[in-house]
Amino acid sequence: MSRPAPLTPPRAVLFDAYGTLFDVYSVALLAEQLFPGQGQALSVLWRDKQIEYTRLVTTCNEGAHYQPFWELTRAALVFAIKKLVAHADGASATGLFDEKVEQLMNQYRSLSAFPENRSVLQTLKERCIPTGILSNGDASMLQLAVKSSGLHGLLDHIISVDPVRKYKTAPQAYALGESTLGLPASKILFVSSNAWDSLGATWHGYQTLWVNRYQLPFEELGTQPTRTGTTLRDVFDFFPPSSS
Amino acid sequence: MSRPAPLTPPRAVLFDAYGTLFDVYSVALLAEQLFPGQGQALSVLWRDKQIEYTRLVTTCNEGAHYQPFWELTRAALVFAIKKLVAHADGASATGLFDEKVEQLMNQYRSLSAFPENRSVLQTLKERCIPTGILSNGDASMLQLAVKSSGLHGLLDHIISVDPVRKYKTAPQAYALGESTLGLPASKILFVSSNAWDSLGATWHGYQTLWVNRYQLPFEELGTQPTRTGTTLRDVFDFFPPSSS
Repeated sequence: MSRPAPLTPPRAVLFDAYGTLFDVYSVALLAEQLFPGQGQALSVLWRDKQIEYTRLVTTCNEGAHYQPFWELTRAALVFAIKKLVAHADGASATGLFDEKVEQLMNQYRSLSAFPENRSVLQTLKERCIPTGILSNGDASMLQLAVKSSGLHGLLDHIISVDPVRKYKTAPQAYALGESTLGLPASKILFVSSNAWDSLGATWHGYQTLWVNRYQLPFEELGTQPTRTGTTLRDVFDFFPPSSS
Repeated sequence: MSRPAPLTPPRAVLFDAYGTLFDVYSVALLAEQLFPGQGQALSVLWRDKQIEYTRLVTTCNEGAHYQPFWELTRAALVFAIKKLVAHADGASATGLFDEKVEQLMNQYRSLSAFPENRSVLQTLKERCIPTGILSNGDASMLQLAVKSSGLHGLLDHIISVDPVRKYKTAPQAYALGESTLGLPASKILFVSSNAWDSLGATWHGYQTLWVNRYQLPFEELGTQPTRTGTTLRDVFDFFPPSSS
C-alpha cells in the first residue's frame, strides 16, 4: 500500500512468530478469568514487558545476561501480575500466584493463530516459495506453537535467535535469516506485525511487510517498511500475479 | 532498605537525570490542556516510547541509526500523539499538530525537579563527595535542565552518553561514569528511579540505589539493586553517619 512495488520479487518469505502468526493477546480471556477486570491490561503489559526484557538482556554486556525467551516470558508475566494485581492484594505471597502463572504460561504454549495464516502459507507452498519463521522464541516454544496452531508442514525453516543469544533487533539475530536461507536480506521478504520488528528488519536490508493489525501509527524513526498491509494476505503484493 | 550495607562506602555518586532528578511526568498538565482527557496517558506513552527508541537505535547495527536524545524525544512525542489522539481526529494533517508538539517539547526543556534534590546535592557537596549526572540526555538538554531546575553548581560532572552513540543500558554508556570519575564502578553509587537503569547499572558493577517513587515492583530478571529507597535522601544510607 505504502510504496511502489520493489524492483525484484523476493525469493523467500520469513515470518515473525509472536504477534504476526500467533495472537499474543489470545491469552486475555484466561487472564480475565484469573484476574477479573484486568485481563486485557495484563495481556498488554505482559507482552510489552516481554519485549522490554529481550532488549535489556541483549543490550547489556554482550549476552552475559541472556535468558531464553520462555524464561523472559515468565519473568514478564510475574512482573505484570505484581504490577497490576498482586501488589494490591498481596497474592504474590500465596501458592495461588504460582498456579495462575503456570496456567497462563501453559496457555502461552499454544496461542491462537490468525485465521488467514494457513491459506497464505499453503499458497506460498504451492507456488514453491521457500518460507520460514525468524523469531525471538526458543526452538521448543516455536515447534509447539507451530504444531498446536496447525501450521506444521507449511514452513520450511523454523529459526530461533537462541543460538546467537541476542534478540531482534540485534543484527546477529536478523542475519540468521540470511545464513539459513543462503540469500542476502534484499532478496528475502520479512513479515511482521510488530512495527519495531519491521523497522529493524528494514534497517537490516530485508524487504519488509508490516502487517498493521491494530491500526497503529508506524515508528517515527525516519524509516518506513517496504509496504504496509492489514493481514498476512498482503504478502502476495510482493509477487507478480500467478500465471495459473 | 533491601540489603545490608555494602562493604565500602562509595567514593562518588552518579545520578540518572530523567525520572530521577527531573520529573518526566510533569508535562502531563500541559498535555492535558492541549489534549483534554489524554494528558496522563500521553505523558506515560511519550516516556515509554522515548525509552523504547533509545533501545531500538542502540541495538540495531552498531550505532548506524543513532539519533540524539532530543530527536528521539520528539519522535516519541509525535508517535504518542498519533496513537492516542490524532489518529482519531486527523489532526496530524494540520499545523496545529506541529504547534502542540513544539509546546510540549519546550516544556520538556525545563522539567520540574523533585523537591528533595537540592538539599541532597547540597549535603553531598558539604561532605565533599563528588557527584554527577550520567544520562541518556544530550549535553545541551542536560545543561538547560540543570540550570532551569536550580541545580546549577551542585553537580561536579554532567555526563551524556552522546559521545559513545549508545544509550543506557549499553556497557559503553555506563563505562563513561567510570572513565569520567577515574573510579571503578564498584566504588561509585549510581542512583536511578528507573528500574531498568538500576538493573543495568547493577549488572555493570555499580553500587545502586533504586529510588522507587511509584511503588512499582522491580524487574524480574534475577538481579536486585544494592538498595531500594523512595526518595533521593536514601542516598545517605550508603555512607557512614556524618561526624559533624
